[in-house]
Amino acid sequence: MKSANPEIILRAVLQALPQDRVPAALHEPRFAGNEWAYVKECLDTGWVSSVGKFVDDFEHRLADYTGSRRAVAVVNGTAALQVCLQLVGVRAGDEVLVPALSFVATANAVSYCGAVPHFVDCEERTLGLDPAKLAAYLQDIVKPGANGIVNRRTDRRIKAVVPMHTFGHPVDLDPLADVCARFDLELVEDAAESLGSFYKGEHTGNRGRVAALSFNGNKTITTGGGGAVITNDVQLADQAKHLTTTARVPHKWNFSHDHIGYNFRLPNLNAALGCAQLEQLPAFLEYKRELAQRYKLIFADVAGVRFFTEPEFAQSNYWLNTLLLEEASVAIRDDILEKLSHGGAMARPAWTLLSRLPMYQDCPRDDLAVARRLEAAIINIPSSPGLLADGEAA
Amino acid sequence: MKSANPEIILRAVLQALPQDRVPAALHEPRFAGNEWAYVKECLDTGWVSSVGKFVDDFEHRLADYTGSRRAVAVVNGTAALQVCLQLVGVRAGDEVLVPALSFVATANAVSYCGAVPHFVDCEERTLGLDPAKLAAYLQDIVKPGANGIVNRRTDRRIKAVVPMHTFGHPVDLDPLADVCARFDLELVEDAAESLGSFYKGEHTGNRGRVAALSFNGNKTITTGGGGAVITNDVQLADQAKHLTTTARVPHKWNFSHDHIGYNFRLPNLNAALGCAQLEQLPAFLEYKRELAQRYKLIFADVAGVRFFTEPEFAQSNYWLNTLLLEEASVAIRDDILEKLSHGGAMARPAWTLLSRLPMYQDCPRDDLAVARRLEAAIINIPSSPGLLADGEAA
Repeated sequence: MKSANPEIILRAVLQALPQDRVPAALHEPRFAGNEWAYVKECLDTGWVSSVGKFVDDFEHRLADYTGSRRAVAVVNGTAALQVCLQLVGVRAGDEVLVPALSFVATANAVSYCGAVPHFVDCEERTLGLDPAKLAAYLQDIVKPGANGIVNRRTDRRIKAVVPMHTFGHPVDLDPLADVCARFDLELVEDAAESLGSFYKGEHTGNRGRVAALSFNGNKTITTGGGGAVITNDVQLADQAKHLTTTARVPHKWNFSHDHIGYNFRLPNLNAALGCAQLEQLPAFLEYKRELAQRYKLIFADVAGVRFFTEPEFAQSNYWLNTLLLEEASVAIRDDILEKLSHGGAMARPAWTLLSRLPMYQDCPRDDLAVARRLEAAIINIPSSPGLLADGEAA
Repeated sequence: MKSANPEIILRAVLQALPQDRVPAALHEPRFAGNEWAYVKECLDTGWVSSVGKFVDDFEHRLADYTGSRRAVAVVNGTAALQVCLQLVGVRAGDEVLVPALSFVATANAVSYCGAVPHFVDCEERTLGLDPAKLAAYLQDIVKPGANGIVNRRTDRRIKAVVPMHTFGHPVDLDPLADVCARFDLELVEDAAESLGSFYKGEHTGNRGRVAALSFNGNKTITTGGGGAVITNDVQLADQAKHLTTTARVPHKWNFSHDHIGYNFRLPNLNAALGCAQLEQLPAFLEYKRELAQRYKLIFADVAGVRFFTEPEFAQSNYWLNTLLLEEASVAIRDDILEKLSHGGAMARPAWTLLSRLPMYQDCPRDDLAVARRLEAAIINIPSSPGLLADGEAA
């Protein structure tokens, strides 16, 4: 097997990109629609904060697009996930199963609840949680408890599983939902990266009781900073709204609150941006899939590396395009990253596995064999919708 | 003593306001400067989120204005206060002394640290913490512990005091700082309402090691949603920045994090708004003080009610103008609120005392005698800078 050549990989990436576009980041936002008009409306009316129509609008549009009954807009994806976990009953001292291969927010949201992240492995087919391995692992380590399953080793209740749809590629939700049912675990999707990604025709985030979306500046659409809780459970949505707006009890003037709530409401100004962005999402997804298609064709002929494509059951948003280095080429990953970065093709490795971060190094975990391999093998390459927009896709 | 008459109070409020301006809220934002230009720059450059110059700009301007060495912009005032408390060492199981008369965020921020709010009384002179009463109370209830003072009744360490500058009026910081020194307590100012308010010539937020500001939509300036940590301790500022940006360890491409950090960074879009707003702050303060002056003169002749004015040691931003009902008129507070609300003069009572909210009703507290009286006596009246802007102040 031929090993990877940094120069050839650089040329392959550049071949996929239009000549006149040098990416400044892996994923740059694109503002080509009504952003200006909606944001100006906020400023002209003075409605930039907690009063104004765009938050409601954005929530309705999100629900429509994702096929969820309700969406609740919040300040960011981390806040959304924290609220999701609280809503399904994660409490201080619980454990929550999360992929070791994820952005740190997945584990932090668990910590904010006073719970402990318990790291589990991924499968190479999806880059996300491996349902079969998880089932075998749980079979091995849990015992029944009064309120759900208990980790035999730590004596802590395991309350929930948080699959993260890595770089936009959906995990295999059907068998994962089966595992959750079998072990009495709540399924909470971390869909921060997967707006526009579908699992067997259904938008990600609809399989568990609640899910978290993100609209950070590097996401498929952005609100500056922002996120949302989506759910098909209307009561849970009402609770999410209440909890994220300081749990204020409605009254014409009294300020009273019935829970320890959060100041997590998305400002109207940011929601205005979100409305304009959401209008362009179908176009963004087209550009992004076209770019992924180009990479796929070009990298079919490049040795030592494979362009990752969506699992067969999924339609992915290809949020971040991904190369996987073959075993023999993992050692030169940093050389490839240097070559790409200096050659006008932004690139970045996977996150450090969460299980290796100092604050999480003592948390429980399975053997993480695949996650370790993926951590060493992943290289993300330019993915912005704007790269092929404006006729460049032709 | 004559009792208050709702009709007369309504007429007095309306007399202070220009005839053509009906307030839609107690405090409406005003966008009369570079808001549009700066926000447009964000959209044109694509820098709306975590990349862009306005966050740095806003932080420098805030530091300049407040006279603090550093400012760190965050998503809102609640997040700012949570970070302040963590920075001074508040830990799970500690108690933190907070005024019972405050917005719920003051207590919630304590809860987010796993600590317990301990409610203490206010003085009528400032509407904020009463240093003398606090000293006497602490003398009575604490004992020395290994790491600071301990509440004799609960056996929990008391770590910090959080004065809140109610409606913009500074508490008496000198004697309060003395109490903190004497009892080995950290002083953390909740300056969410007091941007533009000075204590003996020094901007509020500079007396303790760290302080929290807020730029919510109803504040003196707004960023849609936003807040800041201010401090004169450069090391603490660096920690604040690190903690609020997911505690990521700087590296050209690796994603590694060394603490359980937060996704609290203010988006560049919101910071752009903040820069434009800050440029207008001196003008806003003039309009607001002129309005307060009008209320003061008019209400000097109104029975049963007193217009609250800044303590003698302070220059207040008069964030929310405040009427105090005399004892005999407290019973008709709601009649007055109804009359004002229906008569075109927005009005609102004080927050429900935090010590009476269901989630905090079992927390420790002193007798709260003054806070209870103030809770029943306060009526906030229209306070927007725009009411007297554009020559209306002449």
